[in-house]
Amino acid sequence: MNIKDLLLGKPLPNDAIKHEKLSRLWGLPIMASDAVSSVAYAIEEILLVLVPVLGLLSFSKVPYIVLGILVLMLILIASYSTIIDHYPNGGGSYAVAKENLGEVASLLASSALIIDYILTVAVSISSSTAALVSAFPSLQGHKVLISLLCVALITLINLRGVREASKIFGLPTYIFIFSMAALIITGFIKMAAGTLNPVSYDTPILPAETVQGIGLLLILRAFSSGCSAMSGIEAVSNAVQSFKEPSTRNAKQVLYMLGAVIIFIFGGTSLLTMKLHVVPVAGHTVLSQISETVFGHSIMYYILQAFTSLILILAANTAYNGLPQLLYILAHDGYVPRQFSHRGTKLSFSNGIIFIFIIASLLIIGFKSDTHKLIPLYSVGVFISFTIAQYGMFRKWRQTKETNWQYKCWINGFGTIVTTVVSVIVFISKFKDGAWILAILMPALMLTMHAINRHYTYVSEQLKLDKFNPYYDKDKERSTQCIILVNEINKPFLKAINYATSISKNIVALHVCRHPKHAAALRKEWEELDIPFELKVIETPFRDIIGPMDKYLWEREKQLAPGENISVIVVNYVSDHWYDYFLHNPTNILFWRALMKHKNVTCVQLPFHYSAV
Amino acid sequence: MNIKDLLLGKPLPNDAIKHEKLSRLWGLPIMASDAVSSVAYAIEEILLVLVPVLGLLSFSKVPYIVLGILVLMLILIASYSTIIDHYPNGGGSYAVAKENLGEVASLLASSALIIDYILTVAVSISSSTAALVSAFPSLQGHKVLISLLCVALITLINLRGVREASKIFGLPTYIFIFSMAALIITGFIKMAAGTLNPVSYDTPILPAETVQGIGLLLILRAFSSGCSAMSGIEAVSNAVQSFKEPSTRNAKQVLYMLGAVIIFIFGGTSLLTMKLHVVPVAGHTVLSQISETVFGHSIMYYILQAFTSLILILAANTAYNGLPQLLYILAHDGYVPRQFSHRGTKLSFSNGIIFIFIIASLLIIGFKSDTHKLIPLYSVGVFISFTIAQYGMFRKWRQTKETNWQYKCWINGFGTIVTTVVSVIVFISKFKDGAWILAILMPALMLTMHAINRHYTYVSEQLKLDKFNPYYDKDKERSTQCIILVNEINKPFLKAINYATSISKNIVALHVCRHPKHAAALRKEWEELDIPFELKVIETPFRDIIGPMDKYLWEREKQLAPGENISVIVVNYVSDHWYDYFLHNPTNILFWRALMKHKNVTCVQLPFHYSAV
Repeated sequence: MNIKDLLLGKPLPNDAIKHEKLSRLWGLPIMASDAVSSVAYAIEEILLVLVPVLGLLSFSKVPYIVLGILVLMLILIASYSTIIDHYPNGGGSYAVAKENLGEVASLLASSALIIDYILTVAVSISSSTAALVSAFPSLQGHKVLISLLCVALITLINLRGVREASKIFGLPTYIFIFSMAALIITGFIKMAAGTLNPVSYDTPILPAETVQGIGLLLILRAFSSGCSAMSGIEAVSNAVQSFKEPSTRNAKQVLYMLGAVIIFIFGGTSLLTMKLHVVPVAGHTVLSQISETVFGHSIMYYILQAFTSLILILAANTAYNGLPQLLYILAHDGYVPRQFSHRGTKLSFSNGIIFIFIIASLLIIGFKSDTHKLIPLYSVGVFISFTIAQYGMFRKWRQTKETNWQYKCWINGFGTIVTTVVSVIVFISKFKDGAWILAILMPALMLTMHAINRHYTYVSEQLKLDKFNPYYDKDKERSTQCIILVNEINKPFLKAINYATSISKNIVALHVCRHPKHAAALRKEWEELDIPFELKVIETPFRDIIGPMDKYLWEREKQLAPGENISVIVVNYVSDHWYDYFLHNPTNILFWRALMKHKNVTCVQLPFHYSAV
Repeated sequence: MNIKDLLLGKPLPNDAIKHEKLSRLWGLPIMASDAVSSVAYAIEEILLVLVPVLGLLSFSKVPYIVLGILVLMLILIASYSTIIDHYPNGGGSYAVAKENLGEVASLLASSALIIDYILTVAVSISSSTAALVSAFPSLQGHKVLISLLCVALITLINLRGVREASKIFGLPTYIFIFSMAALIITGFIKMAAGTLNPVSYDTPILPAETVQGIGLLLILRAFSSGCSAMSGIEAVSNAVQSFKEPSTRNAKQVLYMLGAVIIFIFGGTSLLTMKLHVVPVAGHTVLSQISETVFGHSIMYYILQAFTSLILILAANTAYNGLPQLLYILAHDGYVPRQFSHRGTKLSFSNGIIFIFIIASLLIIGFKSDTHKLIPLYSVGVFISFTIAQYGMFRKWRQTKETNWQYKCWINGFGTIVTTVVSVIVFISKFKDGAWILAILMPALMLTMHAINRHYTYVSEQLKLDKFNPYYDKDKERSTQCIILVNEINKPFLKAINYATSISKNIVALHVCRHPKHAAALRKEWEELDIPFELKVIETPFRDIIGPMDKYLWEREKQLAPGENISVIVVNYVSDHWYDYFLHNPTNILFWRALMKHKNVTCVQLPFHYSAV
């Protein structure tokens, strides 16, 4: 308990929950870190697709792609704002799908999101470790370890509660956002003043000589790559209940602010990139080139570089807020084990947080913290969830037919088509590199969730009482027959006898005989002490204690009268040492397992306290 | 259970034990495999020390060293024969030390033997894997896996019982022994016929030019290296009880046969080596050179080569017979956990066998199946145990003063001195390469065994009854107060009530309240159903169930009258699926742990059976 307190701090009482909710000020950076970290690279992703084919001609296509993405962003932000209104308990696309599209779609949305959230953690931490390792090459051999330590640290901070985590992770996100704003505004001013000239390269980038059939596919691929800017928009809708009251209003305002931030950053960097004709070159990101041109080698350049690295770790933190909330909602609906619905000592959804830690750590170990192998799996899920959310809302408007429903249908219908296209392109283009794993993993996760739900439903049916008819109503005496397992007549046995006499008048001591000489000595002592219960000795031909005991119990159970049951007393040797289990009670768990198979038998664990050396 | 039967075969009844003992015919190869596998390389070990310094001059020194080793072998065989007579229950040097030298020496002997037995397994399997891998280089990357599979296979065969194992492993050992005999006899005949000429080498081996101060140390080091021939002699004395009745006579006869075999093989190969002036060259062992010279490239040459590789695996098998017997004796004396004294379904000491499997596997994984790293740790232990056995017998003769005691004292005194010298030289010469680990490991193991013994003694004192004074003698009514943990009024709760009424008249239902609304609904239902027990609702400020329950119990416990106790009923959801635990009972183990801390409280595990989907 002391270590726990040291790591997590003092437990928080239930009524502290209102202090553990996110304000708008600190909620924005928490929710934004994932989105702004991806938006910083979105324009580079677009150019990486176009430039190898089109060269400088790319810049004639970029504006259309950027505009398309901005329109899609607006649609998504507007949709999720409506989703927050209609699903104030959170859950985002899962909740939308569940209500409007049925179980399959809702499980698809949630499994896609679960996988994507965890991949966000693994990818962002692995890439920040990669950045660290390239700065300090002596750490090369310890990549996995460093990544694991980072995950552990983020996990720990999140376990300490939302309030603490939001402040620790919020400040650097704000610094990054403001640095980006400074970059864009300074860039615009210099642009207006006419002092900003295109970047020149040692190897000049030329327009492609023969551009026959630029191909819709190329444009679509560039568009899809740019859409990576949008991952993270979903998180707010999942975690509506994490916000202070009025939670829907606060969540929506955070979503709008988040939208404004990413549109400003994406639009601004895109404009500067087009103006400066920046192309990605190895070891020098587009963002770094813009920053160098605008700021020169001033302090601002270095601040931006440093916080661009840091934001990658922070991106992981968004998952720590979105996923446990989603798991809580899924647990509430019985699709994942119930433990995910409990809040821990610091009122955080600790089981969900620990779940992220375990799975992300396994991914990091399994993929050796190698971003190249992890990235193909990443970001497919988020587009699937966008598509489902869009289509779900489309269906909702058609059914509810509330004010302006045709107009809303057009928007979400268009959103559905675009996000479907993006999902398909992203999935196909990443398929060979590893996204095929998702084609196995997502259905498997869906089936598991379905099975868990079916199990819980089926079991809860069985637990229901049709009629409350306890035996005590029936004027019928109830009694238990007691069996004490005995090996030697010693203090624990005496304690067992004393307990047995307190619950039963029908007591038998059972000795499973491994060594006939020992059994004979036991019987002799028994008779000398004149113990007034039967000592039943049974043989064990194969030296196994459980089997003969089990067989004896089945026979005794058959002879039970109605209202009777059997209590078997098993002594537990208890001291404060972990090795008690090995030295004294190694078979108790086997007894327990065997006894639990009998419907009319209980296993009474009787503690015998001793001091150990 | 089916898999177990498939792997191990049908369980053997207790009275089959006499068929599971070793006859002389099959006992010899089991006990000999370790010894003959090391004796095959003993002369090579000697030459490896001498030749680099002395060149061909070595052969003038070899006879003295060989003679010294033969004398020491005779002393050891004679001593262990006497030890078997005096310690017919087995245990070898441990038993000798325990009686004559006290606890420290006996623990030193046993920890040295435990470590050495396990190292025998790891080393011999790793070297046979190395041989396999050099024959099939494509297996290079799978060394550890192959080694682990070998250990698993040997473990499995030994678990199937002594009778089966001795036949499977006995036959190849006999083939090896007879091939060696054929080699030596053929060699002698050819030698007598004068058709055997010294081996000639491409690079002629010359006598060292300046041999100033051949140094006693060099001779001693060569002598010590040659003593590796003796590891394995100890095993018979550890496992006396593994032999058919009359077990001491059979064990002694096996020991004599074993002695004859190793003296014949060691003496014979040494003589041939000296005659042929064979020196070790890379990739061509001394044994292989002799065999090539004597047999040419006939079928016998290949048989001997094949079985020389095979005998390495079989050497591991000696440990599987010696160590579980030793652990059984140590468990009987309370120095290792008691589980080691139980025989498994096939009457083998299955826990000891599984223990070897686990530790040897860990060693193989930890040292990556690399013999170069394992060998320095190996064979120190066996000389320590020889020394202790010799000194123990020396002390015994001085105390008992039986017939010819002075004469026996001289023999064992001389044995003590020689084995001490060998132990010290072996330990020092291997110290830097890894034997220093033993200087930590052996004391640690000794301390652990001492602590376990102290623990068992201390606890068994506490369990002893001074006086058998059960409460039922005292004309005093005993009773239990029953607490049912309740969350919902459902079938399991009804079953708990019905059980509670069968053991107690004082029943309280305890609800630890996480959600006040739920608690209110529960109370309402309770009142509507008019349940005639108290429903006690306690608050949990920190969402923890165990803490408040524990606190409530301490208070209840304080108020108990003499002769009263508390039974807490915990429902176990039981179906046949492994996932029950995760979905329904994850906190039961925490309840159990908390309840066991209360001296006057029992934890009643009540099964509720449900069918799962």
